[in-house]
Formats: sequence, structure tokens, C-alpha cells
Amino acid sequence: MKGFSKLTEGLIGQPMLEILSVVSAMEAAGQTVYRFEVGDSQFDAYPHVIEATKAALEQGHTKYVNSRGILLLRESICDYTESKLGFRPDVSQIAVMPANSIIDFMMRCVADPGDEVVFSDPGFASYIAVASYLGLKTVTVPVYEKNGFRLNPDDLLPRLSEKTRLIINTSPSNPTGGVMTQDEVQRLAEIVREQDVYLLSDEIYAENIYEGNHYSPSCLDKCRERTIILSGFSKGHSMSGWRLGYAIGPVDLIAKMSQMFETVYTCIPPFIQYAGISALNTPQDLIEKRNRQYKKLRDLMVAKLNEIPGITCAMPKGAIYAFANITGTGMTSKQFADFVLKKAGVALVPGTCFGPGGEGYVRLCYLRSEETIVAACRSMKIALRK
Amino acid sequence: MKGFSKLTEGLIGQPMLEILSVVSAMEAAGQTVYRFEVGDSQFDAYPHVIEATKAALEQGHTKYVNSRGILLLRESICDYTESKLGFRPDVSQIAVMPANSIIDFMMRCVADPGDEVVFSDPGFASYIAVASYLGLKTVTVPVYEKNGFRLNPDDLLPRLSEKTRLIINTSPSNPTGGVMTQDEVQRLAEIVREQDVYLLSDEIYAENIYEGNHYSPSCLDKCRERTIILSGFSKGHSMSGWRLGYAIGPVDLIAKMSQMFETVYTCIPPFIQYAGISALNTPQDLIEKRNRQYKKLRDLMVAKLNEIPGITCAMPKGAIYAFANITGTGMTSKQFADFVLKKAGVALVPGTCFGPGGEGYVRLCYLRSEETIVAACRSMKIALRK
Repeated sequence: MKGFSKLTEGLIGQPMLEILSVVSAMEAAGQTVYRFEVGDSQFDAYPHVIEATKAALEQGHTKYVNSRGILLLRESICDYTESKLGFRPDVSQIAVMPANSIIDFMMRCVADPGDEVVFSDPGFASYIAVASYLGLKTVTVPVYEKNGFRLNPDDLLPRLSEKTRLIINTSPSNPTGGVMTQDEVQRLAEIVREQDVYLLSDEIYAENIYEGNHYSPSCLDKCRERTIILSGFSKGHSMSGWRLGYAIGPVDLIAKMSQMFETVYTCIPPFIQYAGISALNTPQDLIEKRNRQYKKLRDLMVAKLNEIPGITCAMPKGAIYAFANITGTGMTSKQFADFVLKKAGVALVPGTCFGPGGEGYVRLCYLRSEETIVAACRSMKIALRK
Repeated sequence: MKGFSKLTEGLIGQPMLEILSVVSAMEAAGQTVYRFEVGDSQFDAYPHVIEATKAALEQGHTKYVNSRGILLLRESICDYTESKLGFRPDVSQIAVMPANSIIDFMMRCVADPGDEVVFSDPGFASYIAVASYLGLKTVTVPVYEKNGFRLNPDDLLPRLSEKTRLIINTSPSNPTGGVMTQDEVQRLAEIVREQDVYLLSDEIYAENIYEGNHYSPSCLDKCRERTIILSGFSKGHSMSGWRLGYAIGPVDLIAKMSQMFETVYTCIPPFIQYAGISALNTPQDLIEKRNRQYKKLRDLMVAKLNEIPGITCAMPKGAIYAFANITGTGMTSKQFADFVLKKAGVALVPGTCFGPGGEGYVRLCYLRSEETIVAACRSMKIALRK
């Protein structure tokens, strides 16, 4: 009677974490590895966030709390949303949970096995992994380097069907760094309204824009009808390991997602929720200062990549990744990633981890020291010259 | 194209949290409520655990880590298991995740919709809630007050079928406090070996035994073949809001569960994992001191309940709950719970939240102050006299 479920057959995990374990083994064997594979920052959470967490621990905020999130954090999220997007959601529209879990709970609440989920190719690996293990059909919309990797909303239309339950949009995009224009976002919002389909708007990188502004397709329905914003603290506030995010969406859907979260996790630790309140109150000049540092690292990474024969890298407008075109090396993405890991000690992610459309590209998270970026690019240049 | 998935139809959430929200509304309206509904302690985490968490935060243990758990914690769990159960699992047999999630991931990894899961009635509400939303068939084994609410392993046999994928056993038991004998646990282990079925052994209350000892059905296979131990820090170390637990099981199953956890959650915050290491190294005399306090509260709660006409309460040997027989009041469990909440300001959980076999009982978590216990029982006594 023992055995595994059908669900387990679709489990593929997170490819970045698989690379991470290979790299850890190399490091344990004494090798130096320049690591660009994980979408994480060299910067830590702000000191005031660490202090707020410690204070919450001392004050005994360590017991079970409401599975939707403590009211004070949900109200802070409403304030923050109002200041950033110009509308104030009701607290009943907010669910506090890890951002990655939002992808899972969202898909499970609106789609049954065999139903269709639509997103860009290349697109974030977790959309692929979650749809895969849930037995959902993935329908992809190609995005192109020549168009700044921006999704063209009208490309969605021929890909929608009776089976479509959810569109996922990501701007700024992981892995490409593409940022959609205001017109494009507006058109996207119109299409989902016309088609009456759910839209998961992944805005986890909304704070990480270096040129232009962030626009949200929640502009039309204010997350009351069909748009669900996914956001969190991992990227904008350098809190990757804290596992704190939030969804803003229609009241009835948020209720279902919260009930699922309650069944499976009970709640997010309250002292981590207090960290979130503190993070949302980070002075804007600190955020801007960090973004200027990020921009400098981006510029350096892209410049240094472009100095390597066989590699070209367009300037990404947002997020925290360089998405480099390596077709000039004559290698596939996977071959290139294996080659530079072995020959140059550089860990990065093959573009194909983000869908077949990522062939010919590799992703590097550039939130590293300038020295690491320079040394890694020099090492790749030497290895490729041989 | 909008709508909810079939999965959402089976969502019932956690009944205790529903009661909690009613109670919160009463308290917000200025009423005094004696609260026994949530399985939580009045005691906080040990000071050394709080300090270890703060130190980990200061040391920057705030980034993504291995989804199975950091090696140091998994090794500490191996040490702890060896000292408590007499065998040392391999680190590859350990997955660190919230204990509640283990119930979900375990069921999802071994059972498909329509498959059967077997556990006691009354039994822990989360087994019911998770099986319900996953579309699994629940097969229950009655347990009886006259037998100390202990599961008779031979009662399992007629309830196993070709569709059985998982047996869940809970000793000490939530909600009843029943603790199985060594012979019973041994027999259970033999049956699951003979039947070659997975056994989830929920040992979350293993530290909370006031008479006798804890025995684990992992005695035969050492979690290498079919037994999966569920444990965690919420109860034994008063860390309910931390959402930290662990599973010990067969290597291939732990790999699947970890991959699912990685897909949905990425990892447990590393600073919380350091809290776990600290908790596992709690001096035994502190654990024993707290258990003596717990035992004193148990004795008081049971004595005071037995002074109320219409109520009898057997002495539970373990866990943190009194499971009181209220049939003498002439009310159903639900009627009684509503009555004492309204008329005596006492919040408790109707036994039927733990299955139909809980009819005639109510559950009270007695980890409250002596004053609260005395006042609540007095208040119930007065209300019932009227």
C-alpha cells in the first residue's frame, strides 16, 4: 500500500537551489566560486528592521495569531499600497504569507488539474514548478530581447481559452529585468477585464526600478474584482530568508487563500510580521540609497559582461538580474553554465530554467560586491578565450 | 473564466481559530473571556531561545538556506532523537518545516484524491481539515474514554483496504490526552510492517507526559521504511508562533516532501532554525520544571471540572488538554460550548471539532494561570446551576 502520489511525479523543485547545492559542494572542497545564481542581496535587512524583530521577540510576540496576518501589518500594507499605487485596499483584501506560497495558493484556489495558466516565456521558474506539480497546463507567451523582454498584452488574446483560469504577469520581470510601460499595463488590465479572468500581478520587484516607474494592472479594479497583487519583503527590503510576503486581492478569493494557508501553516510568526511593519516604514532615502547602489552594480555587471567576446547583455530597467545573451559563444545555456562553473568558477542560472524561450541566455543576480563582479567577468573572459 | 477550484470546496479551516475570532470580538466589546480554546501555553519560549534568535539575527542568518533545513539544526535533531528514542537517523531522513505543514505534505506525497487515510475519532482537527480539502477519504477508528482514549492497534485491521495510503497515530493525543502503552505502540509498529503502509506518528506532545513514558512506533524501522515522526517546538518548548517543526522519515519520502516544501515555501527562516538548535539544547531540568508546572495546572483543571455538576473529567496522562465529559448537562458539545461562552465567559472547543466521536466532550487547554482556571470553573458552575 506504500508508494507516492501522482502529484509527486510533477515535482521539479527550484533549479537555483539545485545549482546552490553543487556550488556548496565545490566550496566545501576548497574551490572559490563567484556566485550569481541565487536572487539574493549581499545587503542585509535594514538595522531598524532587525531591531524591531528583536523588540517583538522580547515583547512576547511569539504566539499563534490570525492566519490572515496581524491587523497592524495589514493596515500598514494598506497605507503602503495607497502611497505607492494610489488606492487603499480594505484589510479584508490582504493576506500575509510567503510570496512563493501565494503562487501556490493562488493556483490551487482557482485552477483544477488540467486547467490552464498563462505566463511569459522566459518567466519565473516557480510558476513553472508550481504548475507542474499541480498538474496544470502551462500556456506561454514569448517575450523578446528586441522588445526589452516586455510582454505584449495583445499576445495574450490568442492564448486564452475556456480552460484559462489565471494569467500571471511579472513587471519588473525575473529573469529578464523587463519593465512594462504604462500603456502596456493599462492594456493588460483592459484585457483581463474583458476576458473576466484572474490576473496574478507579481510585483515583488516593484521597488527595484532604475529607469522609469512601476505601473500596476490593478489600476482598473483596485484588486476588487480579478487582479491579485503579489508582493513581499525579500527583494525590495533585502529580507529573502524571512519568508514574508502578502497578497492583495478580491475579498472572497483572499478568504479562500487564507483558509488554505491556515489549514497548512496556521500563521506567519508574529515577530516576523512586526519586522514587516518596520520595513514598510523604512525612510524613502534609505530605499533610494540602496537602489543607487544596486543601479551601480547593474551598470558594472552589464558593462563587464559586454566586454566578454561572445556575450552581449542588454541593460535591464528593473529587478536584480542581468539576462545575458550567450549565443555568440556557440554554446547552449546549459553548456555555458556548466562551462563557466567548471572553468571559471562562476555560478549562474541557464536561461532554460525559465522556459525554452530562455535558450541562449543566462541569468546573473548582480547584487554582489564590485570586486566579485569584476573578478568573475575576468575569469569568464579568460576561460572563454582558451 | 473566473471561479474557484474544486479544492476550495473542501476547505474548512481550523475550528479553533474560528472560535478565537468570536472571542476576540467579545473582548473588543469589553467582555472578560476565560480562554481555553487555543492549544497554546501561557509560558513563553525559554529566555535562552529568545537570545539565540536575536544573536542569529545580528549575525546575519537572514538569507535563503537549504530547503531541508540548515545542517546544524538537522544534526541537532539527530542527536536529540538518539537521546530520546535510542536510534540515530541520518540527516537525509530529516526535513525541517512547520509541524502542521508536515500533515499536508505527507498526505499530498502519498495519497491521491479518493485514497484513504486512517486515524482515531476523536482525532486532531488538522487531520480532518487537510484530508477534507485534499479530497481524501477519512476512515476513523473509535477510541473510548473507558480505555483512556488509547487507540487499540488491532482496531485498525478491519479498516485497512487497498485504498489505504496512510495511518496517523497520535500519542500523547490531542484532544484526549491519551498515551499509548509500550505494548500497544509495539503492536502498532508490527501491524504497519505487516501491512506495509505508511504511518505518520504525531509525537508533537512527546515532551508533555505526566505519568509513564513516551514510546514511539519508530522502534521497529527507525523511520527508514514506513514510519514518519512528526515533531516540533510549539508544545514541548512553548514556541507555538514560531512555526518550526520537523519530520523524520524514509530518505525517498523526505526528499519528496522537501521538494514540495521548496516549491511552495523555499525554506524556514534561518534565524528561527537557530532558535530550534538552542531549544533542543535546553537543560533537562528546565523542561522538567515546566512539566511540573503543567502537571499542577492539569491536576487543578481536572479537579475543578469534576466539582461542576454534570461534568466529569478523566485524568489525561499527556498533552496539554482536559477532555471533559459533559453528557450529564444534557447538552450537546456545541450547545455546551455556546452556553458557557455566552453565560460564563468561558471559551473552549466542542469535542465534535475532532470528529463525531467527540460528541459529549469539550476540550480545554489548561496551560493557563491557576486564577484563570479557578475563576472559569466557578463561572461555569454558577451558569450551569441557573
